[in-house]
Amino acid sequence: MEYPSIILRTVCPDRPGLVSHLTSWISNCGGNIRHSDHHTDQDAGLFLSRIEWNTNSSRIDKEKIRGELEKISFEINAQFSLNYSDEVPKIAIFVSKQNHCLIDLLWRVRNGELNMKVPLIISNHPDLENIAKDFNAEFFYFDTFNIEKSLVERKILSLIKQFDIDLVVLAKYMQILSDSFLEEFSSVINIHHSFLPAFKGSQPYHRAWKRGVKLIGATAHYVTKDLDEGPIIEQCTVNVSHRDEVDDLIRKGRDIERMALSRAVRLHLNHQIFVYNSKTAVFD
Amino acid sequence: MEYPSIILRTVCPDRPGLVSHLTSWISNCGGNIRHSDHHTDQDAGLFLSRIEWNTNSSRIDKEKIRGELEKISFEINAQFSLNYSDEVPKIAIFVSKQNHCLIDLLWRVRNGELNMKVPLIISNHPDLENIAKDFNAEFFYFDTFNIEKSLVERKILSLIKQFDIDLVVLAKYMQILSDSFLEEFSSVINIHHSFLPAFKGSQPYHRAWKRGVKLIGATAHYVTKDLDEGPIIEQCTVNVSHRDEVDDLIRKGRDIERMALSRAVRLHLNHQIFVYNSKTAVFD
Amino acid sequence: MEYPSIILRTVCPDRPGLVSHLTSWISNCGGNIRHSDHHTDQDAGLFLSRIEWNTNSSRIDKEKIRGELEKISFEINAQFSLNYSDEVPKIAIFVSKQNHCLIDLLWRVRNGELNMKVPLIISNHPDLENIAKDFNAEFFYFDTFNIEKSLVERKILSLIKQFDIDLVVLAKYMQILSDSFLEEFSSVINIHHSFLPAFKGSQPYHRAWKRGVKLIGATAHYVTKDLDEGPIIEQCTVNVSHRDEVDDLIRKGRDIERMALSRAVRLHLNHQIFVYNSKTAVFD
Amino acid sequence: MEYPSIILRTVCPDRPGLVSHLTSWISNCGGNIRHSDHHTDQDAGLFLSRIEWNTNSSRIDKEKIRGELEKISFEINAQFSLNYSDEVPKIAIFVSKQNHCLIDLLWRVRNGELNMKVPLIISNHPDLENIAKDFNAEFFYFDTFNIEKSLVERKILSLIKQFDIDLVVLAKYMQILSDSFLEEFSSVINIHHSFLPAFKGSQPYHRAWKRGVKLIGATAHYVTKDLDEGPIIEQCTVNVSHRDEVDDLIRKGRDIERMALSRAVRLHLNHQIFVYNSKTAVFD
Repeated sequence: MEYPSIILRTVCPDRPGLVSHLTSWISNCGGNIRHSDHHTDQDAGLFLSRIEWNTNSSRIDKEKIRGELEKISFEINAQFSLNYSDEVPKIAIFVSKQNHCLIDLLWRVRNGELNMKVPLIISNHPDLENIAKDFNAEFFYFDTFNIEKSLVERKILSLIKQFDIDLVVLAKYMQILSDSFLEEFSSVINIHHSFLPAFKGSQPYHRAWKRGVKLIGATAHYVTKDLDEGPIIEQCTVNVSHRDEVDDLIRKGRDIERMALSRAVRLHLNHQIFVYNSKTAVFD
Repeated sequence: MEYPSIILRTVCPDRPGLVSHLTSWISNCGGNIRHSDHHTDQDAGLFLSRIEWNTNSSRIDKEKIRGELEKISFEINAQFSLNYSDEVPKIAIFVSKQNHCLIDLLWRVRNGELNMKVPLIISNHPDLENIAKDFNAEFFYFDTFNIEKSLVERKILSLIKQFDIDLVVLAKYMQILSDSFLEEFSSVINIHHSFLPAFKGSQPYHRAWKRGVKLIGATAHYVTKDLDEGPIIEQCTVNVSHRDEVDDLIRKGRDIERMALSRAVRLHLNHQIFVYNSKTAVFD
Repeated sequence: MEYPSIILRTVCPDRPGLVSHLTSWISNCGGNIRHSDHHTDQDAGLFLSRIEWNTNSSRIDKEKIRGELEKISFEINAQFSLNYSDEVPKIAIFVSKQNHCLIDLLWRVRNGELNMKVPLIISNHPDLENIAKDFNAEFFYFDTFNIEKSLVERKILSLIKQFDIDLVVLAKYMQILSDSFLEEFSSVINIHHSFLPAFKGSQPYHRAWKRGVKLIGATAHYVTKDLDEGPIIEQCTVNVSHRDEVDDLIRKGRDIERMALSRAVRLHLNHQIFVYNSKTAVFD
Repeated sequence: MEYPSIILRTVCPDRPGLVSHLTSWISNCGGNIRHSDHHTDQDAGLFLSRIEWNTNSSRIDKEKIRGELEKISFEINAQFSLNYSDEVPKIAIFVSKQNHCLIDLLWRVRNGELNMKVPLIISNHPDLENIAKDFNAEFFYFDTFNIEKSLVERKILSLIKQFDIDLVVLAKYMQILSDSFLEEFSSVINIHHSFLPAFKGSQPYHRAWKRGVKLIGATAHYVTKDLDEGPIIEQCTVNVSHRDEVDDLIRKGRDIERMALSRAVRLHLNHQIFVYNSKTAVFD
């Protein structure tokens, strides 16, 4: 397993022969398919394909591959994305005061579970600076209470550009990103502390407690302009009872929040997620 | 374990000495406590107690017990309920066309899992009459499309009275009970085919599919005038993925619906549920 | 979606070009791939492929397809199996006294969840004959306490042949099939009432209760000569506590037994299971 | 809720009047019961009781309480344990090379989830010393490969005495404590990386992978002389499939190991566990 693998995701209108078309091309490239998974969304009339393959060489002519795929895509009216397992994406994590999701993600990176770098941590509170230091990430604190939001977002966007960030993870960042921010940078995963679409908005644990639910949930999703309406990637739940106070819900919630978020980030890093029609197909 | 047990549930304002007060009285009655569970809801300032006990006799003077408890209740400003394990409550099940919850409940009764009788099944469709026959229940079909709802409900209420029904279970009854019905008979458990409060209302599986959730749920709850807002008793979930069509959600949902509903009915029959402040405490 | 689909499962030594090889052939047949899933077991050096496809015709030349696949299989040293969605397999269910798994399976057939026929029910007790009648299955009772086992098995095997049975499901059949039985008929799924490999053998719930486990399980597996060592298809668990007696474990166990067994049977019917190296790959 | 609460656990032969006896005494002390839970193990003929109560004073005469309870215990032939919520127990954590359980526990202490101090970390490898430093714990490394085991254990026991340790947590400590160690110090919780009693002994994930199970588990239990036979406190499971290699099982296992272990430690700290007959009753 020394050679890097190539992950090709394709989305196009369904029609006969698509798998054959793609895999014949890979075969002609001398590629060996390691995993492949195809799904047809009947309702949407769409064909979704994820093929992970490698060649007998560590030197892959990425330009050539891209060029040929562009031709194929034109023929079958497809959108494709190409990724390589030897590329380590750069992630920025946004936090507020709570540290559990941040620490969990950084710990998984250090343990080799998540194939990513975290050079940049951004917060609207100064509290978590030391954690950033421990994990060799730059920490930027923006006082969103006293500085105009649009100004803060412009600064953040310039940091994202400067650090060449591929993905932003909102790890309990208690701020809403503006539409104009998302127009400039849209690859953002959030963890919401409820079983969406239940308890959208603020204070979900307080409302769950008041409603007397018997399970609470956490939802990791891509961020879109419609708050809490983004495509869902992963959901976890845990039992609660009348013996649990709001604080117990918050405590139990931390465990499922970090579970759901870390799984979602892992799926994203492995290029296992397709987003379309405001939802995801997760090829796991 | 030959002697019937007595289940005493008490709710009153919290204050010191309540457990001692209740258990001393039981001890003085010659009672032996088999299970006891007490909970203080700090927020509501309420003490909740469930004590299951028995005496060394099959002949219990129920009138005397009730009388003494009424005195105690007056002293501690309590509401209490008294039940006996040798009483077999009579349940009416309301259905429409789907049979899975009905069959599951009846099967559990026959297997000895649920200590109840089902003399009466009511439906707004004629489809499930044969099942009622198989299980020796009377089946009444009311054509709610052509007969005025208030008239139907009056007839149903008179059947409930006639059959001396203790609890109504809505086992996929696709009709809403009116406020005036619930004023006359309020001991009603419903199964809602979503993870409440997500997807209140109709067609929850279609909406869950459209939203792209990764878990679907089922919720058993007591029925109140506010639709889908009644106190939640039990919730179950099951994983779904992009490979699941709406029909798969419905199929998977059937399993968690019958699981959640049968557990809720069992908890009710065992007198393990307290209802207050629009939610439940379940002592299991 | 009127046309029947063709399900092709292939297992062969891994090498480049296999997916392309198979899908090109399907494409040349005018086939449209509905689902396809491929997996390489690195450790075993095996390629596993399941392709579900259909053509624009209800008339499929099954002989021709089989013939061509035999040629392909020879080239790539593969074992393949071919199934058609319009074939309804015939299942024999073996039971003893407990009815929950039997009723659950029959109910799912009637509800359209399981695409199979159940013409034959075999038991070593006479108790469940009426259920067989209700569902129009022939019921044969063999008194295994008084008749020699090898004789009973010979009779059962002749019934299996007579009824043209494709799969035997042991739905709480408290008898062990002999090696010679399995040599003659080996397509057998069993439900074991524990989380294998924990509590192999008899009385698993009693032993689980004694051991004080906090979860109990059920395991559906293919039957092999080594008792309780067959390839595992599906496992379910449920929480238990010190409040649960052995009877409660048995009761809770019934729910996960029928869940695990019905899922396993469904996966088998959908041809989603590969068996190799004493284990399964389940493509769901 | 400012006043510390008193947690009284009682185990004695079952007989009428026990709850009344205990709660009357608490009432006479001016105590207010916050939580109380009683269970009768019919099979063992034992009464188990946990009562959490407080008085209207921060100054509790612990000597007097203990003295009176000793008299009561004598009368009802009971064993009791008394704990106070304002006592913060001192925990020693034993580790080898893996850090996930250690970090998780320390993080939960820092976050206020676990009411304990961790002054002492012991390892048979030097690798995790820095983590100890980060959390202000003393770290002692013993080279168990070159020093005789009995000598190492004597040193560890003297550290346990020196640091006044109340509980030892084996957080992936890949060493077996000797019988003589456990005779001197027996309050030890271990995390075993399987769903006990499945896969006792070493390399459970490798064996689970080879067996082809569809769920893997983790078990937190008290340590006894019989390896992997100690009373089970908590068990967690997670789904696995044929797509998971041994490394994936290990990775997924880490999440359920730290979940099961942290829950077990929390239950122990809250004095919610009774141990008897080689199993536990967990009052949660």
